Amino acid sequence: MNPLTSPLLTDLYQLTMLQAYVEGDMKDKAVFEFFVRALPEGRAFLIACGLESCLKFFEDMRFSDAEIGYLKQSGRFSPALISYLSDFRFTGDVYAMPEGTVFFADEPLIRVEAPICEAQLVETRLINLMQFETLIASKAARCILAADGRASLIDFGLRRAHGAEAGLLAARASYIAGFIGTATVLAEPVFGIPIFGTMAHSFIEAHNDEQDAFVDFCLANPNNTTLLIDTYDTAGGARKAVAAAKILAKKGIPVQRVRLDSGDLLALSKEVRRILDSEGFQAIQIFVSGNMDEFGIRDLLAQGAPIDGFGVGTKLDTSSDAPYLECAYKLTEYAGQARMKKSSGKVSFPGRKQVFRKYRKGRMTGDTITIAGDLLAGMPLLEPVMVGGKRLAPARTLTEIADYTREQLSTLPEELRDLTAKSSAYPVKISPALERLKNETEAMLTNS
Amino acid sequence: MNPLTSPLLTDLYQLTMLQAYVEGDMKDKAVFEFFVRALPEGRAFLIACGLESCLKFFEDMRFSDAEIGYLKQSGRFSPALISYLSDFRFTGDVYAMPEGTVFFADEPLIRVEAPICEAQLVETRLINLMQFETLIASKAARCILAADGRASLIDFGLRRAHGAEAGLLAARASYIAGFIGTATVLAEPVFGIPIFGTMAHSFIEAHNDEQDAFVDFCLANPNNTTLLIDTYDTAGGARKAVAAAKILAKKGIPVQRVRLDSGDLLALSKEVRRILDSEGFQAIQIFVSGNMDEFGIRDLLAQGAPIDGFGVGTKLDTSSDAPYLECAYKLTEYAGQARMKKSSGKVSFPGRKQVFRKYRKGRMTGDTITIAGDLLAGMPLLEPVMVGGKRLAPARTLTEIADYTREQLSTLPEELRDLTAKSSAYPVKISPALERLKNETEAMLTNS
Repeated sequence: MNPLTSPLLTDLYQLTMLQAYVEGDMKDKAVFEFFVRALPEGRAFLIACGLESCLKFFEDMRFSDAEIGYLKQSGRFSPALISYLSDFRFTGDVYAMPEGTVFFADEPLIRVEAPICEAQLVETRLINLMQFETLIASKAARCILAADGRASLIDFGLRRAHGAEAGLLAARASYIAGFIGTATVLAEPVFGIPIFGTMAHSFIEAHNDEQDAFVDFCLANPNNTTLLIDTYDTAGGARKAVAAAKILAKKGIPVQRVRLDSGDLLALSKEVRRILDSEGFQAIQIFVSGNMDEFGIRDLLAQGAPIDGFGVGTKLDTSSDAPYLECAYKLTEYAGQARMKKSSGKVSFPGRKQVFRKYRKGRMTGDTITIAGDLLAGMPLLEPVMVGGKRLAPARTLTEIADYTREQLSTLPEELRDLTAKSSAYPVKISPALERLKNETEAMLTNS
Repeated sequence: MNPLTSPLLTDLYQLTMLQAYVEGDMKDKAVFEFFVRALPEGRAFLIACGLESCLKFFEDMRFSDAEIGYLKQSGRFSPALISYLSDFRFTGDVYAMPEGTVFFADEPLIRVEAPICEAQLVETRLINLMQFETLIASKAARCILAADGRASLIDFGLRRAHGAEAGLLAARASYIAGFIGTATVLAEPVFGIPIFGTMAHSFIEAHNDEQDAFVDFCLANPNNTTLLIDTYDTAGGARKAVAAAKILAKKGIPVQRVRLDSGDLLALSKEVRRILDSEGFQAIQIFVSGNMDEFGIRDLLAQGAPIDGFGVGTKLDTSSDAPYLECAYKLTEYAGQARMKKSSGKVSFPGRKQVFRKYRKGRMTGDTITIAGDLLAGMPLLEPVMVGGKRLAPARTLTEIADYTREQLSTLPEELRDLTAKSSAYPVKISPALERLKNETEAMLTNS
């Protein structure tokens, strides 16, 4: 049973609920929507990401013989449920915001319309994928805003990501947001994402001489010549890099970059730039890593650090300042009737919804959430992506998604581009039609 | 290529370094150690976890034909490296703290001794697994201390975990720390962890009547009868649960628990307890979920909330207040010679190390980190677990590990059991022998 694809990677309550639905012959169409209740501190907007993973999950969702065997021998489940799951296929309709779309609190990212068993059973994994990929794309987009086109960004976070899938999907989500690539090798064969790599401190330490280590590395990797120069002393490392570059130049191998991973990166990058330039190596770029995030990138560039690229790792791949989203996948309609919850402090909007976004001079000026079918001014954000369990179009390429995300970021109002902006700076309204539906549904619940 | 097992789930620099090692014929034994540099704010101790995942990774590490094919066509790698990787097997020796061991900053959790290519190539995935599982076991242990035996804890975090593997491994790590189980179904067939599940709000909302929903659920799941009572109004929900329980009692089906997921949980749990007791349902337990962490558990129990169990989700599975560890896997010896890095602010200790722990009256009183082979008073924490790539003993069962962890937690000094304690409250010393080795290695680096 592969956790990445197994339908048993779910909460037990999905199966106990399905058992009651199957036993009670509840088969009507349910509508669920996934949305974020409130943006975390430190996020003025979010970037939708994870749709492609979800669609693939919906398409491939099957219970294998081994999985059915486990369900049988567990003794928890009725023959009727097991028979239902043996034949399970997802046959629902899905509406969604394209990956890369800027969005805000309460706006549905995905709407699933399917017989209630199907729409319910996909919940856990849908949230698991959508939350994580959206977290990382959103954090990465902030790094892109901070770099503002003045430096390239590369994902370095696999080792501190939470497990294998998180590491791999973080490479994808950050690439979509505008990173030029990742250090994670597997992201190239799986997603076609450009990969980058240098050397570790251990490589230098395993050699008796730093300069020998530089030369040996470049001889073995003549097309990938980034030298890590801070193992013992950064300025000294820069001078040894220059010496190595002179030796290598004679063999026709250019040193492309030096990397700094510790210390006062502003002062050191300036000193290293001086050393390189004074020896005629203006073409060698300076690459920086170590504890980076959007604020580090912004501050170093603002202070004039001569840095050409950043490796962004731990804080990106864990979205460390906001490691989760207050998100939910809520039933909004069943058997043609709007539904909602009234738990203290957790009221949500009933019914099938759409979001319209208005623009002025190429910048977004405000969103309105309304009921699906209502036609408002502006651009609708959700579009049909799957009908009867089949995709309406092939998956977009990552390059297409990254282009779309760049375009989305370019339409952000100036206020939201500030790293300390609050999401309240952007107006999101509820339409009169949706308010009316909410009031009617509430009244119905109170009377029942 | 399955990210969970693919050796390509690694940083590109591992492969570029290996290329240089293979081309330069560097084959000597390297010693690497994994440790945490400094404990995060809010952690007075950590619980070692992840060893079993690492050992399995070491044993199974192979490059498949597809992976070798990718490496060939990428054009980045030499025939010599590709030939080396085609035959790759991990043949190293591994020393480690058993899973469940309490540990502190600078103490090695795992030591890998192997030809440098092997010891280097396992780095990325080793950190990826060890960091995450240790994060979760440590957070879960804090929840266990907070519950102090007065309430049962269940992992509810899959949906907000960072991807599939994080969700599954969080179930394991929290079980090791003392949780009674998880909501994640797959944890049962994969790890044999007990699973628990109730119902979602959507189940109640899909029914036209809350009481009917309760009865239908229990009829379909007669051995798993937990009722979620906060969908519309918690006290009203409790009364409907009582009415349902009376109907179900006549059919011989007992209602086991009610669950609260929102609102003022202290006041509501007391009110619900009164309603249940006044109707003769003293045996129905109260289970609580929603935004829980160690502080929520501690405070509710301290205030006398009549809560029998907690579902702990998002904040556990993301370790939200400390979503990463400042950890490293460092070369400490190569070709028989101690090695270390001197990067600004990141000095580490060279050589192969062992940790000795002293006890008084069953409580730990202080650790000393020394060089391997040095014999100090106290209990050594690292033990050999793999020789020549083969395990020395079969994997311990999760029950054995959980028992060992419970014992470890029982030896914590009283000061460290406080949720606001600082790790500085516990003394960790460096032995004279290790200080000497560090000074010698530094002197050697300065002279070279």
